[in-house]
Amino acid sequence: MKEITRTPIVILNFKTYLESTGEKALNLAKISQEVAEETGVNIAVAPQHADLLRISGQMSIPVLAQHVDAVDAGGHTGSVLLESVKEAGASGTLINHSEKRMKLADIQQVVKKATEQEMISVLCTNNIETSAAAATLQPTFVAIEPPELIGSGIPVSKAEPEIVEGTVDIMHQINPDVKVLCGAGISTGEDMKAALDLGSEGVLLASGIVLAEDPKKALLDLVSKI
Amino acid sequence: MKEITRTPIVILNFKTYLESTGEKALNLAKISQEVAEETGVNIAVAPQHADLLRISGQMSIPVLAQHVDAVDAGGHTGSVLLESVKEAGASGTLINHSEKRMKLADIQQVVKKATEQEMISVLCTNNIETSAAAATLQPTFVAIEPPELIGSGIPVSKAEPEIVEGTVDIMHQINPDVKVLCGAGISTGEDMKAALDLGSEGVLLASGIVLAEDPKKALLDLVSKI
Amino acid sequence: MKEITRTPIVILNFKTYLESTGEKALNLAKISQEVAEETGVNIAVAPQHADLLRISGQMSIPVLAQHVDAVDAGGHTGSVLLESVKEAGASGTLINHSEKRMKLADIQQVVKKATEQEMISVLCTNNIETSAAAATLQPTFVAIEPPELIGSGIPVSKAEPEIVEGTVDIMHQINPDVKVLCGAGISTGEDMKAALDLGSEGVLLASGIVLAEDPKKALLDLVSKI
Amino acid sequence: MKEITRTPIVILNFKTYLESTGEKALNLAKISQEVAEETGVNIAVAPQHADLLRISGQMSIPVLAQHVDAVDAGGHTGSVLLESVKEAGASGTLINHSEKRMKLADIQQVVKKATEQEMISVLCTNNIETSAAAATLQPTFVAIEPPELIGSGIPVSKAEPEIVEGTVDIMHQINPDVKVLCGAGISTGEDMKAALDLGSEGVLLASGIVLAEDPKKALLDLVSKI
Repeated sequence: MKEITRTPIVILNFKTYLESTGEKALNLAKISQEVAEETGVNIAVAPQHADLLRISGQMSIPVLAQHVDAVDAGGHTGSVLLESVKEAGASGTLINHSEKRMKLADIQQVVKKATEQEMISVLCTNNIETSAAAATLQPTFVAIEPPELIGSGIPVSKAEPEIVEGTVDIMHQINPDVKVLCGAGISTGEDMKAALDLGSEGVLLASGIVLAEDPKKALLDLVSKI
Repeated sequence: MKEITRTPIVILNFKTYLESTGEKALNLAKISQEVAEETGVNIAVAPQHADLLRISGQMSIPVLAQHVDAVDAGGHTGSVLLESVKEAGASGTLINHSEKRMKLADIQQVVKKATEQEMISVLCTNNIETSAAAATLQPTFVAIEPPELIGSGIPVSKAEPEIVEGTVDIMHQINPDVKVLCGAGISTGEDMKAALDLGSEGVLLASGIVLAEDPKKALLDLVSKI
Repeated sequence: MKEITRTPIVILNFKTYLESTGEKALNLAKISQEVAEETGVNIAVAPQHADLLRISGQMSIPVLAQHVDAVDAGGHTGSVLLESVKEAGASGTLINHSEKRMKLADIQQVVKKATEQEMISVLCTNNIETSAAAATLQPTFVAIEPPELIGSGIPVSKAEPEIVEGTVDIMHQINPDVKVLCGAGISTGEDMKAALDLGSEGVLLASGIVLAEDPKKALLDLVSKI
Repeated sequence: MKEITRTPIVILNFKTYLESTGEKALNLAKISQEVAEETGVNIAVAPQHADLLRISGQMSIPVLAQHVDAVDAGGHTGSVLLESVKEAGASGTLINHSEKRMKLADIQQVVKKATEQEMISVLCTNNIETSAAAATLQPTFVAIEPPELIGSGIPVSKAEPEIVEGTVDIMHQINPDVKVLCGAGISTGEDMKAALDLGSEGVLLASGIVLAEDPKKALLDLVSKI
């Protein structure tokens, strides 16, 4: 667990881009691992559920699920069971991403279950208020991502630095064990440096790397100013 | 495609039972393949998304997803993209299972996309009226499952035969190309025979096999009276 | 019932605009009634749930709910019960509006319940395929509204006339008792005339009237070329 | 506002029972008002949206909505706009009832909007952990209701007193301004006394009164031991 949560951390969300599906997902994971090895930065990847095993079977960097459902084992056709993504090699999961918002009761259930099963939880929030609520639920990470900036190319660390600082502050007050990540619009080394300077311990990002012409170059740039 | 849709067909829904997750999913798929080979009956398995590759990589029987979301490739964290389950080896997908009901517009989108990508679609319905609506959408199969009988052990073919017959009738009227499957409460050879006698071309089932003390014996019994 | 479904019909969806909430909803209903009386055209209004009684208590034109939930009486806090909107004066309800898409099984349940309780059902669809499915469920009206044109000011009757014609055709094939309405982008008399010329029997519209500088003038224009 | 939040308080949730719909809702509100006047206890009623105006127009006790959606005024057909329930006479709203669970981001938005519009917010939670999260969002009340006890007739104050005490404790730590209510299984005067003894400032209940043979007698009993 310690190695998985070592910071500064980069979590690369593969979303459902074709550029990061199937064999291309594996390829992007390989690039991520190369950059992690070359630079020593902790990089985790979050591919689609159907790609977890493909990647975890061949790579050694941390692999996260993008979502799990708030269900226990049983008759739940089509749901994503935490146990299934764990057995497919996931060390943790994103929770409540802005593209997959969850009910409060379900978030609490999934964070608790992840902890019980020794998996890390990356709980996404949209503002300081929901970050405060998230802090009480004791996830491993809170990833603050103002939804309007996701995929915009405008880094939250520049556009709304007060939201990142406010989230870091509130976490110190409510639950200092929870580490803050910074998402939305991050793509360059400067963005990442700004995110860390604001008190976060890493970034959660997607399109800036996944859709880059040269993802390896983009990842190398991202971690260049840490 | 022809082999995949050969009837009579048994589709075994693994749901999210621990008994059919991960390595146990693979084991159940092996059993299913053995029975298919020994008896010549067409048996398909529908494991969880994270188990698709594990099974399709080692087995030759048809593998289906339990659900796909109505999204196209792009920024949809946590969603299940049809392209991803296809690349993980799925030949088709269940749609609108009673444990994962979908919006009408989303059902239409997923059935259409499955057809375009040469995947089979197994559209679940709950009564004759929704079966009629389903027929117009041109899926490969319509699986009629009165929700109150799912997991009950009481076979629909015995408890509500008129729903199966009515679905077969309406399909003949609206779209004779769509094959009818029968679900809910099916577990024995007698249940399956009754289902076929009512005009359906196969069964969709889960707990009767997955939770059986001896799944192979249960599967052999299921197909024994065809 | 006959008077309520007399065509050509205009159904004015009040949505959740402040311009059509509370006292302003009542005012817009008064204007609608005046235009109905002056022109003889059948105009129905669909205000928010909390405004149904305010309007039905003082007006005689047909009042519809914008949505009801697929629940029967019981413990369902926050749901919209058909019986409650009926007792508040609604003669029917919109179902599955593009801003409130419903599951197939729920649509079927609500259409059936509306019919049983002698209320009219206006089932919204997004393309010819879902219109065909809708036809089998036997609503009073199917309102075809390509979502990308809603609120656009570009009338569906001009931008995608083949969708309206196709819906009219499919309705004749599957269920000629169901009347077709045309929605999305409709605002002028010319738009409405085009909609009727394509074979629809009325329009479902909102912003073109609700947000008009002079709603009465806009409504009078809308029905001027019938 | 002060009078509305005076404690001990009884909030009577009408849910979607036929016994508390339409004219029967008005009748139950009258009974509630009589008991409030006779005993001096603060009693608020939460009828269905379509019944808000019917009750608020004739009664003086506080009226709450059962739910509002996380939307601002605009094109949101079928949604429940806070402004609409306010204009229909609601002084506040239940939020996130166990029968209408909401996403975390939506809860935060609705609590905030209610406060901005000087309406009270009664935020329902299912355990101590979600109560802690709720506390950070600064609602007027947190109503703790273990879902398995709702409608059971087994009072939470007896079955799981530690959940009520734990919620009261956590509220004192995180946000002492938030008052705790106690729900689930409450129906008698003894239940209510036990709830207050555990540190809560009132109760949220439904079937115990709504479905009682003699609701007035049941309400009088409920408040008899305060």
